Amino acid sequence: MAFFLNGSISLVRVALVGFGTVGQSVARFLCDGARRPLALSHVCNRRVERKVVDWVPPTVTWTSDFEDVLRSDADVVVEVIGGLEPAGDWIRRALEAGKSVVTANKQVMAHMGSDLLQTAAEQERHLLFEAAVAGGIPIIRSVREGLAGDRLRRVLGVLNGTCNYMLTRMEADRVSFDEALREAQECGYAEADPTADVDGGDAQAKLAILSAVGLGRRIATGTIPLRSIRPVEAVDFTYARRLGCTIRQVSRAEVLDGGADVTASVQPMLVPLTSPLARAEGSQNVVIVDGAYGGETAFRGFGAGGEPTAVAVVSDLEAIARAGPIAPRRWQRTEDARVAVDFEAPQYMRFVIVDRPGIIASLAEVFLRHGLNIDSVLQEPDWPKSALPFVVTLEPCGSGAAQAALAEIEAFDFHARPPVWMPILPRGERCP
Amino acid sequence: MAFFLNGSISLVRVALVGFGTVGQSVARFLCDGARRPLALSHVCNRRVERKVVDWVPPTVTWTSDFEDVLRSDADVVVEVIGGLEPAGDWIRRALEAGKSVVTANKQVMAHMGSDLLQTAAEQERHLLFEAAVAGGIPIIRSVREGLAGDRLRRVLGVLNGTCNYMLTRMEADRVSFDEALREAQECGYAEADPTADVDGGDAQAKLAILSAVGLGRRIATGTIPLRSIRPVEAVDFTYARRLGCTIRQVSRAEVLDGGADVTASVQPMLVPLTSPLARAEGSQNVVIVDGAYGGETAFRGFGAGGEPTAVAVVSDLEAIARAGPIAPRRWQRTEDARVAVDFEAPQYMRFVIVDRPGIIASLAEVFLRHGLNIDSVLQEPDWPKSALPFVVTLEPCGSGAAQAALAEIEAFDFHARPPVWMPILPRGERCP
Repeated sequence: MAFFLNGSISLVRVALVGFGTVGQSVARFLCDGARRPLALSHVCNRRVERKVVDWVPPTVTWTSDFEDVLRSDADVVVEVIGGLEPAGDWIRRALEAGKSVVTANKQVMAHMGSDLLQTAAEQERHLLFEAAVAGGIPIIRSVREGLAGDRLRRVLGVLNGTCNYMLTRMEADRVSFDEALREAQECGYAEADPTADVDGGDAQAKLAILSAVGLGRRIATGTIPLRSIRPVEAVDFTYARRLGCTIRQVSRAEVLDGGADVTASVQPMLVPLTSPLARAEGSQNVVIVDGAYGGETAFRGFGAGGEPTAVAVVSDLEAIARAGPIAPRRWQRTEDARVAVDFEAPQYMRFVIVDRPGIIASLAEVFLRHGLNIDSVLQEPDWPKSALPFVVTLEPCGSGAAQAALAEIEAFDFHARPPVWMPILPRGERCP
Repeated sequence: MAFFLNGSISLVRVALVGFGTVGQSVARFLCDGARRPLALSHVCNRRVERKVVDWVPPTVTWTSDFEDVLRSDADVVVEVIGGLEPAGDWIRRALEAGKSVVTANKQVMAHMGSDLLQTAAEQERHLLFEAAVAGGIPIIRSVREGLAGDRLRRVLGVLNGTCNYMLTRMEADRVSFDEALREAQECGYAEADPTADVDGGDAQAKLAILSAVGLGRRIATGTIPLRSIRPVEAVDFTYARRLGCTIRQVSRAEVLDGGADVTASVQPMLVPLTSPLARAEGSQNVVIVDGAYGGETAFRGFGAGGEPTAVAVVSDLEAIARAGPIAPRRWQRTEDARVAVDFEAPQYMRFVIVDRPGIIASLAEVFLRHGLNIDSVLQEPDWPKSALPFVVTLEPCGSGAAQAALAEIEAFDFHARPPVWMPILPRGERCP
């Protein structure tokens, strides 16, 4: 295989906006001497004087003022500051200034990607965002280009490494949610405020991007229903294992048979141990796409961390260097879609009760009235009658019906703790 | 996300050379009305009159003469006839005629890819070959572009769907090799002559391509050592399971610490059940790449069949339509490398003997003399003494030493059948 220079390479000047963990990893890559024709030209960060390091070439301009970047001769702006604003505004202004942009910003791409890609197209500049979803996995390029010839029907993923780290810790050592969270914070996986991770906002943004890029369905990010992993307890892994499953925060978007709309959700689910989703360990991410022609393709890798994310950013930069400053025309059949919340699946419900006769009967009556069929009732031995956990699984039904029944059940006075409900990923959804 | 036309699209005329299973799937995709700006313009096949179908537009030219394609106004030639010649010559001449080329031909890319990519570069035309390796998995694009920012050190894969189908059948129902082969042939997975699949030539070509594209190491395809899966018997799966493993045809290329050379091989190996390689079921392919920065990334999908392969071909065509007729300059740090055959691993040796006292002693003496340490001796009950299978596992050692010891052992007169030797994929090589 010969891979050599075809024509001469002109330097591509890169302005790095944001010099945190990811930004510093990107800078290290750009300065490792092996990235020609990429050249770091600017580093922009608030109060940049604190940030100056000696291992970048003296030719690099350090500034705290984004206007310097806009006025500069940089060809590409790398945005790694995160958050919606000012990042979104800066990306737009960089494009309008005729610069291409590489961003790792899932929130900006999920909420403003539509307009920004339009601006990029009008300016004939690149706007690449491989790092915004599952950093170490080249999933954006894979669904946009590698599988462009297929027609994707479903995206299923473990998209939040922090949740996955916590859930695998709870599974391995039966530690509590709070303990797992503390560990994740000590390892630097979780923020001081873990809301975006554990309650699903982070994965929600990534799923919205995958829905648009992979399924060609543009959905309002905020309309993807979220359910937190906070209620999951160690005991749920014991019951999950009895059902041949584990528990993951699953992000799921599926085109409703041929129509425009999709069902989508981010929530904890029971996942068969045979599913690639169950194989996501520690802070790994997994993405499974289901194509009309190619069948299921599964990707697994490290979703976060400075270096995997920097790999994605630098790969985008090299793609721009290959393609040249003028962005190739890009088109994709994309339509606006609504999110249908309800989707059919077997259901897992875990109750912790103050034991007394007749409880199963009262539950059964409610399920019956909602047309729900009990599949199994599981109870582990050796728990105190004052806080006795047991599990009911239901045959496949809509999540709406399950929720309605649960709302009634929550009104009973025998609960020692609030019930927990999770859909069970149907085995049909595992790789063949 | 907005994905719309940026500038107007000019039609991309596609000449399809080869109208077998893959060619027909490609044609169906191009004629499904959703592939604008791709337009099928020619179909070229030997004795094409037998091939004419009514579902392609009347505007398509049918010909048996490749010269017609060269003289035509086609922008891109899709080569899906397979085999080294005339395919290689036709690809070169198509490039020289100013046409871009998309090929599914692993043999051509493995053996002539270097020169052909050079010709393409000189002509500033595209030569894309996503379909040549693991059809349904966009692995070429992923390692060339998606992970371009990383420095890949190892590629590990299950690259031959036919072998994997056969091995999973032997594992599931303990059928014989011959029975598994017959089934594979009935399902259309295996050719009448299965040599290229079961003896490793097919995977060898794919591994050579991945070594060049992924590791930046250009190796002479024929120098990658091959060992056939033919000697594998159902009983080996029984012993493998006792060792927490299964058996796969593993293609492996790894950069020798920082140096130019690589160790590479295609052979049956014991694979820990926890490895993604063990999860390749039926005709699936799995590729694992190990990057200095991004860690391990694993890909699984369907490696063969008309439609997954056609998805890869059409995805390459859409990439050309996006990029325009002039190929973007492409460079890659690639060096010529030699293949070092020897690699360290624990070893599995299965003997079938006519039982008598002292056999273990004679084996032990040979291993001792070669400095090899026995890790375990396993023997399943209830086998006749006249053909008694048992297994010896060795602590990690070079394959050369293991082979030398085995050569001596084969000279003993107690063998009822020739011994079988397979390396055991070290657990360290599974995903974390």
